[in-house]
Amino acid sequence: MPEAASVQATIGDSEFDRDTAVTRRSPGVYDVDLSAGWTIIGAVNGGYLLAVLGRALAEALPHGDPFTISAHYLTASQPGPAVVRTDVVRTGRTLSTGQASLFQYDPEGREVERIRVLASYGDLDALPDDVRTTAKPPAIPPIEECFGPQDAPGPVPGGSAIADRLFLKLDPATLGWALGAPSGKGEMRSWFGLADGRDPDPFSLLLAVDALPPTAFEMGLEGWVPTVELTVHVRCRPAPGPLRVAISTRNLAGGFLEEDAEVWDSADRLVAQSRQLARARLTN
Amino acid sequence: MPEAASVQATIGDSEFDRDTAVTRRSPGVYDVDLSAGWTIIGAVNGGYLLAVLGRALAEALPHGDPFTISAHYLTASQPGPAVVRTDVVRTGRTLSTGQASLFQYDPEGREVERIRVLASYGDLDALPDDVRTTAKPPAIPPIEECFGPQDAPGPVPGGSAIADRLFLKLDPATLGWALGAPSGKGEMRSWFGLADGRDPDPFSLLLAVDALPPTAFEMGLEGWVPTVELTVHVRCRPAPGPLRVAISTRNLAGGFLEEDAEVWDSADRLVAQSRQLARARLTN
Repeated sequence: MPEAASVQATIGDSEFDRDTAVTRRSPGVYDVDLSAGWTIIGAVNGGYLLAVLGRALAEALPHGDPFTISAHYLTASQPGPAVVRTDVVRTGRTLSTGQASLFQYDPEGREVERIRVLASYGDLDALPDDVRTTAKPPAIPPIEECFGPQDAPGPVPGGSAIADRLFLKLDPATLGWALGAPSGKGEMRSWFGLADGRDPDPFSLLLAVDALPPTAFEMGLEGWVPTVELTVHVRCRPAPGPLRVAISTRNLAGGFLEEDAEVWDSADRLVAQSRQLARARLTN
Repeated sequence: MPEAASVQATIGDSEFDRDTAVTRRSPGVYDVDLSAGWTIIGAVNGGYLLAVLGRALAEALPHGDPFTISAHYLTASQPGPAVVRTDVVRTGRTLSTGQASLFQYDPEGREVERIRVLASYGDLDALPDDVRTTAKPPAIPPIEECFGPQDAPGPVPGGSAIADRLFLKLDPATLGWALGAPSGKGEMRSWFGLADGRDPDPFSLLLAVDALPPTAFEMGLEGWVPTVELTVHVRCRPAPGPLRVAISTRNLAGGFLEEDAEVWDSADRLVAQSRQLARARLTN
């Protein structure tokens, strides 16, 4: 799908898979190495971090697919070594629940907790096919009418290492902020994929929900919008091909806003829903 | 507001406050007594349970107001004694994060975990007044044109102890299910309060988001819709007076559905948003 990919990477053999890999140190404890490749202006992307934690829980639990995963972001993660400690809360026939924390190390080598998550896992392939969804896929123009960081004439404001790893093509209707004319609406829509052509899976969905520019930009705000809490529901294993991500914000108040994301696959299935609470800087 | 309340109860001195009270057993550990008054056909209501856990965390953390609280429901709670064990994850200047688990006892007296939550608390009164909300209050008729359990000619299907403690007046447009003619739309709207007239606070908002009949009823499904996970964002301290709650479901698929709730106060402020993932029985 992305034009640049000469040899298409596959699920299990791609940069995303290597950079979210977890290595078992002892039962339930996993060493990881946070890659600098998924940073936004130096900060490690919250969706990438959630995918790392999600993979650790998939190892620790008897079920392999995140159905619902909630993360509270405590301190800012840095590229480099980290450890994920997991706890099996309950195992059931169709759902298992686990907890995980990601720690890094302070200058004295002490563990500092970065993120804590609580999640319930199941088997997406075991779900019945019944669909009664009333939601419609987002109205987003064809890929060739959308724009990504590589289409910009110069360096993009907020340009980042992660941009090289993502295939993002934003709906021009939500790109006013990049031209200095934000629409004032809390909406952001984009085509989404991995730059090396790896197809989506439940773990890359955890990345997809937090990879677009913040809706706050289209509401005329600037600067960082740090996530306090992010919950993702994975509803269906995504079909191969590009995803469409639509994010909306209805309530910006008291210095906080929510971002609701919907992710649709190439088969027009609503494959993930997420909501996050983030802090906003109400400076202008 | 509720017609039946002869003497209006107040925040701190009401049935809801007494039934969600927590008693410190040791640092971070709280004894509670789950009341049979908040059950729906024998099952303890998930929003009531969240309020109990929310109050325990308010005791354990330096901040008193839940900003975002995520609960994973593990096993069905029963009326009777329980214990809440809390863990302070991180304390910060504006936000503190904590974890809590509610346990009950099996016949051998061993603790069985019912619910685990992860939450970030702050001080709602310290938030700036800035509001740029684009969401509009739900279109719901005046209270006198809405209907509650007490308006039914006979016993209500699903009638429950909790109905006596709530002031619920449902929008007739979302009441088709009660007349055997569900609309097919995943919507439920109601006025909400406590029957004794106690005004809303952040803890009763945790109840409000999970107190309406399931949207699944209006989609033609029957039976129990057990919550897997529920996340609530409290965005503003509610003004006195009745609340309006609007719940919507966009995606019913694979045996699961999400329920998104918005809670509006009498001052037309969006005071809480929630999303839950629940299981649906796709039998008809």
